[in-house]
Amino acid sequence: MSTLNVTIVGASGETGRAIVDGLLDSSTNFITALVRPSSVNKPEVEKIKTRGVTIVPVDLVGSQEDLVKALSGQDVVISALEPFALEPQFVLATAAKNAGVKRYVPSAFGPSCPPTGVMHLRDIKEEIINHIKKIYLPYTIIDVGLWYQGTLPTLPSGKIDYALTFPALQVAGDGHRASAITDLRDVGKYVAKIITDERTLNKYVFAYNEVWTQEQIYNHLEKISGEKVKRNRVSTEEIKATIAAAQAKFDGGDKSYQAVLGLAIPQYLDCEWFRGDNLPESAKYLGYLSTQDLYPDFEFIKYKDYVQEVVDGKGVPIYANRGA
Amino acid sequence: MSTLNVTIVGASGETGRAIVDGLLDSSTNFITALVRPSSVNKPEVEKIKTRGVTIVPVDLVGSQEDLVKALSGQDVVISALEPFALEPQFVLATAAKNAGVKRYVPSAFGPSCPPTGVMHLRDIKEEIINHIKKIYLPYTIIDVGLWYQGTLPTLPSGKIDYALTFPALQVAGDGHRASAITDLRDVGKYVAKIITDERTLNKYVFAYNEVWTQEQIYNHLEKISGEKVKRNRVSTEEIKATIAAAQAKFDGGDKSYQAVLGLAIPQYLDCEWFRGDNLPESAKYLGYLSTQDLYPDFEFIKYKDYVQEVVDGKGVPIYANRGA
Repeated sequence: MSTLNVTIVGASGETGRAIVDGLLDSSTNFITALVRPSSVNKPEVEKIKTRGVTIVPVDLVGSQEDLVKALSGQDVVISALEPFALEPQFVLATAAKNAGVKRYVPSAFGPSCPPTGVMHLRDIKEEIINHIKKIYLPYTIIDVGLWYQGTLPTLPSGKIDYALTFPALQVAGDGHRASAITDLRDVGKYVAKIITDERTLNKYVFAYNEVWTQEQIYNHLEKISGEKVKRNRVSTEEIKATIAAAQAKFDGGDKSYQAVLGLAIPQYLDCEWFRGDNLPESAKYLGYLSTQDLYPDFEFIKYKDYVQEVVDGKGVPIYANRGA
Repeated sequence: MSTLNVTIVGASGETGRAIVDGLLDSSTNFITALVRPSSVNKPEVEKIKTRGVTIVPVDLVGSQEDLVKALSGQDVVISALEPFALEPQFVLATAAKNAGVKRYVPSAFGPSCPPTGVMHLRDIKEEIINHIKKIYLPYTIIDVGLWYQGTLPTLPSGKIDYALTFPALQVAGDGHRASAITDLRDVGKYVAKIITDERTLNKYVFAYNEVWTQEQIYNHLEKISGEKVKRNRVSTEEIKATIAAAQAKFDGGDKSYQAVLGLAIPQYLDCEWFRGDNLPESAKYLGYLSTQDLYPDFEFIKYKDYVQEVVDGKGVPIYANRGA
């Protein structure tokens, strides 16, 4: 495999850092991160710089010419931008097309989900995907299921609170519904494989490690920790009502980050645990290739190892520096 | 191959009749047409009845229960409904899901085209496709390129006017741009093959016969007819301006059939002859399988045979009974 020039935008975000890690592990990439001029000296940017990533200061919504120049000669451009701001994503995709980029990976990295009408967040991502298709920008859509790091409830003792940025405190119905889950630390490794694979060009790829039901997750945690965990059950009617209320608030004009999250969180729950969207067979129906088919020998982190790690006090919380 | 129960809705339309013809040619289908109760005695319905199609009177926007009952036991449901009316199409897809239909073919049957932002007509069809995906209704999207019957300009002598319901009077730029073309009479034969093919389940299929440039079409017509045909050239700037004006009118609130057509016609021209959307390689990028790959032995009507037929006075005009 020859050296690949890969540019990433949004490298200091949660998914972005996981991708940078994965790319750095793979020795075939020359990695550039586009960074807002005002962020060049931030600690998280300094950190990836010392690890061998070339930092290029670029204002996405500034000169289109500068942006095209920055992307010229790049084989792959990966957007790990926060999905809510559409304008920079449109601009970046168009510049990638004009720069002759050979593969564009837009900000997806979520659960498998139908294009519209299930998650507002997906509806937004779909607008970017549709723009990409309109301009015939070569692409790969990568979705990654639900992060392990978002699957565990807290324990009564509080001993795993340290590792749970978003504890999973609600159980969908009887808990016997399944979802595809992936360790965030594997995301970058999947991305590194996918972007060098001709089979995934102009395709959707569903990258996931394992499939668990919520009841299996809770039972396993109880077994490993020796503690009992209460099930806070949510019915289909309740989740629908919560989404409807949040949707009404949003449609009523409240587009605050709070209102967006208020809609996004129950919709995630609905997609991942109620509707069954985030499952290999649903992803296949929706047109995704599967990493389990593409890379049967991929050695991902096993879910049981992740749970053990967390219970042993060795877990790494996500969004640890989100306040930064 | 065992007998397949196929229901078609919109059987008396232009595409609908072509599909019924194709299905009747294939002896493996038991065909039902859902028809509005008020249309049961119309001559075009009587006609397909005498050919062995079972007529079931159903009001699409009436009782959902009756509709589900009408679709129960059907392997395939094909919608050849006029695409502008969304409500009946949403209702039909939902009923097909509730009836356990094994494959739903929504009303597409147009050129290969990106999902949004190129043709308003496609944007609308995409809403139905997205609904289908949201409810996990097994589907096949079939697009068919540009009909042969919409490719020829008139001749100065007027001798082929009889066959040209929509003469192709505008040439995109230098005329060297290509498009994939298909005889309307082959559409039903493709559909009959596609709906019995497991490889096309939950996939997009681009059915087309040949690829021609406008200049090649004009030159060929001149050669066969012995007449010279003037090129009315339209520039990219002109087509863009025409579309922008029609879009402004439409967005301004004029949703009349006239306004819709005023937007649809230049957008078809843009998609089919300017942008290069309606080409096998574009369709492939957009995720379509190709009938040329799936059915390499398919004996379609050759474009040269179609042109000869028209010049010989044996052409069959399309939409001949559109006033009915």
